[in-house]
Amino acid sequence: MSRNVFFASIAALISTASIIGCAQSQSTQPGQAQSLPAPLGSPITADVTMAAAGSSAVSAPAPPEALPALPTGNVVHVRLVLLDRLVTIAPGMQYRAWTFNGTVPGPVIHAQVGDTIDVTLTNHAMMGHSIDFHAALAPPNVAYQTVRPGQSLHFSWVAEYPGAFLYHCGTPPVLAHISNGMYGAIIVDPANGWGSDAQSYVFVQSEFYPTLYPGTTDQYFGDLAKMKTALADVVTFNGLAFRYRDNPLPIGVERPVRVFVVNAGPSHFSAFHVVGTILTRVLVDGNPANAMIGLQTAAIPPGGGAVVEFTVHQAGTYPFVTHSFGDADAGALGLFKADE
Amino acid sequence: MSRNVFFASIAALISTASIIGCAQSQSTQPGQAQSLPAPLGSPITADVTMAAAGSSAVSAPAPPEALPALPTGNVVHVRLVLLDRLVTIAPGMQYRAWTFNGTVPGPVIHAQVGDTIDVTLTNHAMMGHSIDFHAALAPPNVAYQTVRPGQSLHFSWVAEYPGAFLYHCGTPPVLAHISNGMYGAIIVDPANGWGSDAQSYVFVQSEFYPTLYPGTTDQYFGDLAKMKTALADVVTFNGLAFRYRDNPLPIGVERPVRVFVVNAGPSHFSAFHVVGTILTRVLVDGNPANAMIGLQTAAIPPGGGAVVEFTVHQAGTYPFVTHSFGDADAGALGLFKADE
Amino acid sequence: MSRNVFFASIAALISTASIIGCAQSQSTQPGQAQSLPAPLGSPITADVTMAAAGSSAVSAPAPPEALPALPTGNVVHVRLVLLDRLVTIAPGMQYRAWTFNGTVPGPVIHAQVGDTIDVTLTNHAMMGHSIDFHAALAPPNVAYQTVRPGQSLHFSWVAEYPGAFLYHCGTPPVLAHISNGMYGAIIVDPANGWGSDAQSYVFVQSEFYPTLYPGTTDQYFGDLAKMKTALADVVTFNGLAFRYRDNPLPIGVERPVRVFVVNAGPSHFSAFHVVGTILTRVLVDGNPANAMIGLQTAAIPPGGGAVVEFTVHQAGTYPFVTHSFGDADAGALGLFKADE
Repeated sequence: MSRNVFFASIAALISTASIIGCAQSQSTQPGQAQSLPAPLGSPITADVTMAAAGSSAVSAPAPPEALPALPTGNVVHVRLVLLDRLVTIAPGMQYRAWTFNGTVPGPVIHAQVGDTIDVTLTNHAMMGHSIDFHAALAPPNVAYQTVRPGQSLHFSWVAEYPGAFLYHCGTPPVLAHISNGMYGAIIVDPANGWGSDAQSYVFVQSEFYPTLYPGTTDQYFGDLAKMKTALADVVTFNGLAFRYRDNPLPIGVERPVRVFVVNAGPSHFSAFHVVGTILTRVLVDGNPANAMIGLQTAAIPPGGGAVVEFTVHQAGTYPFVTHSFGDADAGALGLFKADE
Repeated sequence: MSRNVFFASIAALISTASIIGCAQSQSTQPGQAQSLPAPLGSPITADVTMAAAGSSAVSAPAPPEALPALPTGNVVHVRLVLLDRLVTIAPGMQYRAWTFNGTVPGPVIHAQVGDTIDVTLTNHAMMGHSIDFHAALAPPNVAYQTVRPGQSLHFSWVAEYPGAFLYHCGTPPVLAHISNGMYGAIIVDPANGWGSDAQSYVFVQSEFYPTLYPGTTDQYFGDLAKMKTALADVVTFNGLAFRYRDNPLPIGVERPVRVFVVNAGPSHFSAFHVVGTILTRVLVDGNPANAMIGLQTAAIPPGGGAVVEFTVHQAGTYPFVTHSFGDADAGALGLFKADE
Repeated sequence: MSRNVFFASIAALISTASIIGCAQSQSTQPGQAQSLPAPLGSPITADVTMAAAGSSAVSAPAPPEALPALPTGNVVHVRLVLLDRLVTIAPGMQYRAWTFNGTVPGPVIHAQVGDTIDVTLTNHAMMGHSIDFHAALAPPNVAYQTVRPGQSLHFSWVAEYPGAFLYHCGTPPVLAHISNGMYGAIIVDPANGWGSDAQSYVFVQSEFYPTLYPGTTDQYFGDLAKMKTALADVVTFNGLAFRYRDNPLPIGVERPVRVFVVNAGPSHFSAFHVVGTILTRVLVDGNPANAMIGLQTAAIPPGGGAVVEFTVHQAGTYPFVTHSFGDADAGALGLFKADE
């Protein structure tokens, strides 16, 4: 199958099956009896199997900024399918991405401290990939091993720390796998929640290093030499330059907003800032133990995250950016729109 | 009027009128009755008017490192005039800057939590500009709207958070407006002050991306393509490379020093460091709730700030830098000189 | 003596003499009576003398990741010799470095709050150099003065703050002196220790900006123009790209690990991260007063440091990186190997 044909066929893989479901209890799942969620401290193991028939089905993507509802019960089932896919990273710019479930970033995963995260990673891409959860305590050579095309990996782990964490492909060269789109956010709520009700959004910041794909005039792919320089052409929130400038996100007046910001990099530090307000609270890496008060700008390293909270007191349009303005100019700029 | 003539005429605009005054009370100002300082929570409005005759007069600039005295009363009047001006950004290098009040950075503004900041922004430059206060809670589409040449904008807001904040032009492309010199520091004291007496300095770090201005051999202007790369040629404290290497700043032995550091960027993170001492206290974004103790180096994102405190115990020369040494080498290096 | 002959002769300078010793008490050292360790607050002075015969002898280098035992007594004698030396910074890449004691980084220095650090710096290199301790309170023009070839500098200071600190050459252009290898870590334990037993490692992150040395095909030296761009070709932990990928570091299961990370830069920020675990505690600049909990990634500015702690619960291979992945790809990537 030629590369072009492959890309053309990806759309057909999308279905409406749920990718992130939830069991009411830790009851045994059919075919997964050997790898039940492990009690804290038990060894984490991983099963590699041939991908099951139909395992390439992924759900229609949710809005990338939406925090999915916290599942009931204490097992979060994560079904991720590795897919090569043509995505739009800037207005008019199509990019040959490597993805989790066909989107860049991959789906937002939502759990709570104490939950078991039951992961099945199925590879329908053209090369080997893996998944590295920053929220997990797990031996990388076991849990984050590379899954070959046509194979499936299953493992589970228990979320012990609250936070706004990155997940990403950890297969070398990691620089290329992240640059090409293989990342997403996993939000782990504290056992007692975040302390207050708020409207929630999830932003994953990331850079792209595109170059024209040979033989095309409008398709781009990753330029490894450029990735090494860290001189990015496109920087985004949630995978598309100016996504929320062109489609502002609604917020409410006098209604607290909580943004889970994860910086996928691969290389740039973020200086997250919301124009027209002050961040009432910033939790470094999303842990309530690390609270900063009254920040104008939150520094977030690549591979890091933050929970930022604010409230606006008046209707209006409030831009958000990384205040590293070369990157905002390259696309990491959006708008909140507050109506009465 | 040609561009050259325009620049030549700027010097004539400078007068000795006060730019930052203070009212003893919230008494009504002539011609501003409709936009009195708003009680906390009241809507912020903005008036756009034709620039009044004489409104281009700005004061002779104060030393950029000086923290002006805190005004008495609880209203801080800020009168800022937008001016295109030729400034010196490095020894022998003149730059066609866009400025607040004719200097880069613009004047330091000093207020206290609870004060009303009454702003009048008058545009005598060649294009539209605006002002975005990181210290304010205000709808950007109202308060930070672009003011056209010949117009004046008036609005007021109440300072609710203490800190070392950036203000800057927020008119797109913001990258260009910041790079070209449109920024300054606004220092908001906590209601009960900073906790101890100290000698104060204000530093605004910023980068420049100059290229020769066509038809000249010694005048530079901003290169937007270069700004996008974030490969800066000149980095400064207070707008002039090596300003305080060539003119060291006095400090005292056993006399606490408090430096308000604001990082205007547009793109680089700062690693603020004073050679020969350790920062006894660093307040992230200048908020006393965010105190770090005993730091060798303070990380400050672009669009962020910090209050750093230290005391030297012996006479000598103490350099300060961003320890991101490519930037120190490009000009972000100065000296404190401590005499007995 | 030609430069090549000089380099060839460096190996002969290495001996087995101790470079960092310890006195049982503050007893007077022969020939140093005038510069006894100063009580806190007393002026720091420095003696410049001709280098004594035999003063170029340095010890065989210890493993760069090893934290040396804390000396008994309260005086730490630091004997550093400045040497030009050919070192390996990446597999197959030799670099004409400027060094402390012949290695890049220089030796790890270990002290405790309250200790007197008694420093003798002897210059057997081809140009002037100096030493700047981020852990010290000392007038730079006295203690950090440049020592000419053939001369020796002696001074002492008292460690007042705990932390993971950088030391480096402070002679202009500092950018070149750091880039060429003149840095190391000084770890100052809190008076009551770090709070728990742990296996310790020391990592110094740094970048290199090599270009081929004229007349050679396999020797590199520092390219000042490249240093100014901050576009690094090689980034390392402890001076050698992929040092610990090729030779993993052992850790234990259920055995706490404490890593002292110092970022020498010269320019890049670090995003220190250990794959497969979460940092239980991160002390900003290594001060226990600045504890962050449950971090996925620790941001460390150039010229800064951190103490990071973690524990793995299962045997396996755990990579560590700066998650600024352009830099990890350039060499700042290693492995911990945990066996039962």
